[in-house]
Amino acid sequence: MQKFVPSMIQNFGVRGFLLVFLFALLTPKSAGAPQNSAQPRALNLMPVPANVQPGSGSLRVDSTFSVALTGHTEPRLDGAVERFLHQLARQTGLLVNSKASNSAQATLVVHTDHASKEIQDVDEDESYILEVASSGAKLTARTPLGTLHGLQTFLQLVEVSSDGFSAPAVTIQDKPRFPWRGLMIDSARHFIPLDVIRRNLDGMEALKLNVFHWHLTDNQGFRVESKKFPKLQGMGSNGLYYTQKEVRDAIAYARDRGIRVVPELEMPGHSTAVFVGYPEIAATPGPFKIDEEWGVMDPAIDPTKEQTYKFLDELIGEMAKLFPDHYFHIGGDEVNGKAWDSNPKIQEFKKAHGYKSNEELQAYFSQRVQKLVTKHGKAAIGWDEIFVPGAPKDIVIQSWRGPDSLAAAAKQGYRGILSNGYYIDLMWSAARHYVVDPLGGAAADLTPEQKQLVLGGETTMWTEYVSGENIDSRIWPRTAAIAERFWSPPSVTDVPSMYARLDIISRRLAWVGLTHRSQYYKMLQRIAGDATPEEVAALTTFASVLEPVKDYTRGDSTSWKAITTTPLNHIVDAVPPESDAARRFGELVDKFISTSCLDDDAAQRLRAQFTAWRDNDARLRPLAQRSFLVQEAAQKSQDLSALGAMGLAVLDYIPKRQPAPDSWKAAQLAMIEQLKKPQAQLLLVPVAAVQKLVEAASTVGTCATAKP
Amino acid sequence: MQKFVPSMIQNFGVRGFLLVFLFALLTPKSAGAPQNSAQPRALNLMPVPANVQPGSGSLRVDSTFSVALTGHTEPRLDGAVERFLHQLARQTGLLVNSKASNSAQATLVVHTDHASKEIQDVDEDESYILEVASSGAKLTARTPLGTLHGLQTFLQLVEVSSDGFSAPAVTIQDKPRFPWRGLMIDSARHFIPLDVIRRNLDGMEALKLNVFHWHLTDNQGFRVESKKFPKLQGMGSNGLYYTQKEVRDAIAYARDRGIRVVPELEMPGHSTAVFVGYPEIAATPGPFKIDEEWGVMDPAIDPTKEQTYKFLDELIGEMAKLFPDHYFHIGGDEVNGKAWDSNPKIQEFKKAHGYKSNEELQAYFSQRVQKLVTKHGKAAIGWDEIFVPGAPKDIVIQSWRGPDSLAAAAKQGYRGILSNGYYIDLMWSAARHYVVDPLGGAAADLTPEQKQLVLGGETTMWTEYVSGENIDSRIWPRTAAIAERFWSPPSVTDVPSMYARLDIISRRLAWVGLTHRSQYYKMLQRIAGDATPEEVAALTTFASVLEPVKDYTRGDSTSWKAITTTPLNHIVDAVPPESDAARRFGELVDKFISTSCLDDDAAQRLRAQFTAWRDNDARLRPLAQRSFLVQEAAQKSQDLSALGAMGLAVLDYIPKRQPAPDSWKAAQLAMIEQLKKPQAQLLLVPVAAVQKLVEAASTVGTCATAKP
Repeated sequence: MQKFVPSMIQNFGVRGFLLVFLFALLTPKSAGAPQNSAQPRALNLMPVPANVQPGSGSLRVDSTFSVALTGHTEPRLDGAVERFLHQLARQTGLLVNSKASNSAQATLVVHTDHASKEIQDVDEDESYILEVASSGAKLTARTPLGTLHGLQTFLQLVEVSSDGFSAPAVTIQDKPRFPWRGLMIDSARHFIPLDVIRRNLDGMEALKLNVFHWHLTDNQGFRVESKKFPKLQGMGSNGLYYTQKEVRDAIAYARDRGIRVVPELEMPGHSTAVFVGYPEIAATPGPFKIDEEWGVMDPAIDPTKEQTYKFLDELIGEMAKLFPDHYFHIGGDEVNGKAWDSNPKIQEFKKAHGYKSNEELQAYFSQRVQKLVTKHGKAAIGWDEIFVPGAPKDIVIQSWRGPDSLAAAAKQGYRGILSNGYYIDLMWSAARHYVVDPLGGAAADLTPEQKQLVLGGETTMWTEYVSGENIDSRIWPRTAAIAERFWSPPSVTDVPSMYARLDIISRRLAWVGLTHRSQYYKMLQRIAGDATPEEVAALTTFASVLEPVKDYTRGDSTSWKAITTTPLNHIVDAVPPESDAARRFGELVDKFISTSCLDDDAAQRLRAQFTAWRDNDARLRPLAQRSFLVQEAAQKSQDLSALGAMGLAVLDYIPKRQPAPDSWKAAQLAMIEQLKKPQAQLLLVPVAAVQKLVEAASTVGTCATAKP
Repeated sequence: MQKFVPSMIQNFGVRGFLLVFLFALLTPKSAGAPQNSAQPRALNLMPVPANVQPGSGSLRVDSTFSVALTGHTEPRLDGAVERFLHQLARQTGLLVNSKASNSAQATLVVHTDHASKEIQDVDEDESYILEVASSGAKLTARTPLGTLHGLQTFLQLVEVSSDGFSAPAVTIQDKPRFPWRGLMIDSARHFIPLDVIRRNLDGMEALKLNVFHWHLTDNQGFRVESKKFPKLQGMGSNGLYYTQKEVRDAIAYARDRGIRVVPELEMPGHSTAVFVGYPEIAATPGPFKIDEEWGVMDPAIDPTKEQTYKFLDELIGEMAKLFPDHYFHIGGDEVNGKAWDSNPKIQEFKKAHGYKSNEELQAYFSQRVQKLVTKHGKAAIGWDEIFVPGAPKDIVIQSWRGPDSLAAAAKQGYRGILSNGYYIDLMWSAARHYVVDPLGGAAADLTPEQKQLVLGGETTMWTEYVSGENIDSRIWPRTAAIAERFWSPPSVTDVPSMYARLDIISRRLAWVGLTHRSQYYKMLQRIAGDATPEEVAALTTFASVLEPVKDYTRGDSTSWKAITTTPLNHIVDAVPPESDAARRFGELVDKFISTSCLDDDAAQRLRAQFTAWRDNDARLRPLAQRSFLVQEAAQKSQDLSALGAMGLAVLDYIPKRQPAPDSWKAAQLAMIEQLKKPQAQLLLVPVAAVQKLVEAASTVGTCATAKP
């Protein structure tokens, strides 16, 4: 276990300095305040580096910008510089020459000490030092991984200024808090095209994530080509799968960006797609067909047949060669046991081996599969369920259950990563994910040595209701906030700062090629059809305060069970998981209430907002009559008007500075309960903030007190 | 000359019916009026077909949609159906199976009579008949070219409706008015990457354009690989050029979409890039370097040397093989003669041959080059200047001078296409291009036989101030309006209808992959840098009423001479050539004035608009202090505020219903002259409409009359 050796960053740090500076760093710039170059600028960096020391002045970035590589060289570094310069050109519009320079006089001199491992591992040195002065910049790293990270930090530093583009003078000494910072993409429920995978790898690089966990198989599809078992993809998919060449290309693409690729083959459950072509290893008789619906399905591998292990030995062997990473994900979650219960031979097997439960039977299966993984030179990673007695010590537990589960494993010397809390398919806010810490919960009480067994975490992008068209907006920008959790010091927890920086990073990710912002408008236009510009504007206003329902509510609706055959072209598929407009509205309401509702400017802005909402439904209604995709959310549009009217009523009430009568308050709150109900899988988000206003207007001491 | 044979469309038509129906068709839908299925719907088709007969009911378009091919088959048709289904899936979000069906029960049955020519020619039959009924649809065409057009028409018919996606029942009998409907892209001034070329070919297909004229060489770069003369691209470009394989791929891509590719090699002027590697054929001594600036340059080919013709013979021979199209463009424009005047040998040559002018010398050159083109099996096309005495009868004259020039040529039996009036680099409005007709001006007086010699037209996208990043927004959507001029009956001239349909087509072109809308926002975000959301909103409001200066004003500015080394990242590069917001504002003002300023709703909307403008500069100013790209347009932002204030003053004045005093009017008009001045190559477009308001408020009989 080499991964926790002291890195060069260890000796830098005056921790006190860091905290003081971070305060300045993380305070969002006050809107409109002119920048004074004598003061430290707020840096729009995400993730926040381990240590930032501001300098004075700034480095001009113009068309003469150049980069030179010194020290260790390899083609990956040349490619990284070329991509860096290309990205710099894209984000500035400057005509930057996209070739590395030989000159020591280059604007940015990049020094890399030595190579990283041939196959990127979890214990690599990813640290770097970036020094920017008005005369030039220097990036120093032990390995190309640090170099890659430092280049991304530099790109984030470049900003438009009063006399051109520039990067502020600064010294950054940086290294990650956790060595395993992942994003899982489920290519099974909905096939995610390779160009979409690639641009998300670009996004991962921009946020310093270093593990792409590729969920390749599930009940709804087997998405990777097997040459040994061609019926896996041939019968176990709808024709959409990745060829081995495509996989190799994607792995090379990821490696160029400092990203490991960990493949997952789900077993013994979530395997229906395997059984379509190979029913002989299933616990129940076939024939099987690919699942269209979502949920925990009954079919499972038969863990009692030797034929099963022969099959898995060959398959894992083939895939272990295809995927060079040391870790091999064997799934393991959500086996309901029904298939095993229904098979008399399996019951006999359990009896013969003295297994009292299906969990014990699964443990047997896990042990045997883990041995196969070991045989093929890999270490197994899997969901909580693979943590069974006698498991090899080199496994990694990916916890969907939570940090307590990780802590329990760590106490027994097992490593783990956290995914509970990072399920971005649940449509939570960035803030809700952001507060989750891999060392939270019971893990907070671990010894320092045990804590080191918590390697980091992974966000999980399950794709029941996500396609290649809208996946970017489900992953980004929220994953950037989670990436900060994985990289930055644990003290970096300020939510307003996170949102201020997230907004800027989100815009910049568009220059990386991600479509999380642009696709939203395109999908709204589709919903709008032949709408007039006024109708499009009304739809945009409406959609801007909607969010998809949270958790797995959508899956509970019968009309949404058939995930692979139901088009994802509804408003719920277009709107981002988190409404920026609603969040900002909530902040405005909080600010207004915090002034005892005396802030006239805030009151005026609230009034304008409420008026626009009140009047919006009338503008949208003609379109709702023509477009079924608008019609299905028509009640929510009426609700938005009602909410606007209620807000105006509250604003009219507040100047009385008297507590509102109980009857009035009760009527408002009853209405609010109605407005909170989802429709077309959509929530009207600002309802909660208006509720706060109603309560403030009714409560002595907040807005129901005479002016001082 | 086979191209004017009667096509199958000839027998359809009750012209009277067409006109009556077009009136219904072209009337923009009144905003918000619910659709009554008993009435003919306004169809959002562009270009408007030759003949449209509405049916009753509509064809449901859902995930079961299928297409079958009958009659003539070829791989191009299979590919077209696959692309059609893919596009249908993109524009609806439906999970359409992207394979052609074998069944005669398919939703859309496509019948193609026979193949088109192996090399697409100017005289092909492009007609089609599309019949849509509630039970299914049928597309019939003589050739795959008609099939391709009909599929695009069907895609435009599909719309969101109250109970799903559908296509209205209709019978369309369609054929183009002109056989040559082109878009020229200049890849020389700025290199246009192939992916950008490809998506513009997709856009051309959507609008039924059929000629991609590729301007491959100019003073600033030689952009196509020559294997015989590798210094052409090697020294004559900055490394950015198309390989012969890439060219072949692009030609195949175009052919799949029914588009011919006509290459242009500019000569004898606009050839500096040739002389960098091959100074021996220049009229003046070298060395030469690629031009960075724009304009008409002095260097020219030496037309007196036999070596010149040997070089051109080989080069044209090589390129004639690479580009299969029958037409080969030899440029010919803008030779200023200075290079010839300064060369004593050329003077001697002129004297020896009795040439009195450089025009006569150029005519000699043109004749010889035209012979070379003929020798290699092609017909020459060139700018007006190639129309010289003794020119082969098969040449095509591309007129940058105007329809009179075309008419003069036609009277002598020469064919031509019009580009004058379709120079989209001039930043004109769609309406201004739309009224230009290839058979306008003197061409209107030609005999019917002479008119047939006018083959159509081409829009020209010169790229002095256009890069691959923003070219889509320079070409689209305005080129769609021009495409309608080339395709639709001459009676289709209603400008409001054009704009209503253009708005919808523009949104749909985003689904084709064009970035004309999305790139605008990305570029504004770049200009905004780390701006707050409020500042971004202020910048968006500001930019939405700006347009680039018109004609060649930008090139007159010394700071913009160096076209290839100056970044195109300014507001002027982001904003579209035509401001939709300003156009709609102008329509609102016209409507208001047309009611003698009595329309209260319009007055209220104007007041809201003026208030927003008046307050915008204060919101934008902090950003202007931080971003040089905003700062350079700061005066225009102040002007917008002044315009808003002026508008409010006029609105306040109007209720008096008295002519405004002359002094007041004079003061306003003086201010308006100030506001009209460009800054940072930007115009504040709504000034003209406010001027109308000022004048209306001052003029008895419009808004200065007591209410009736």
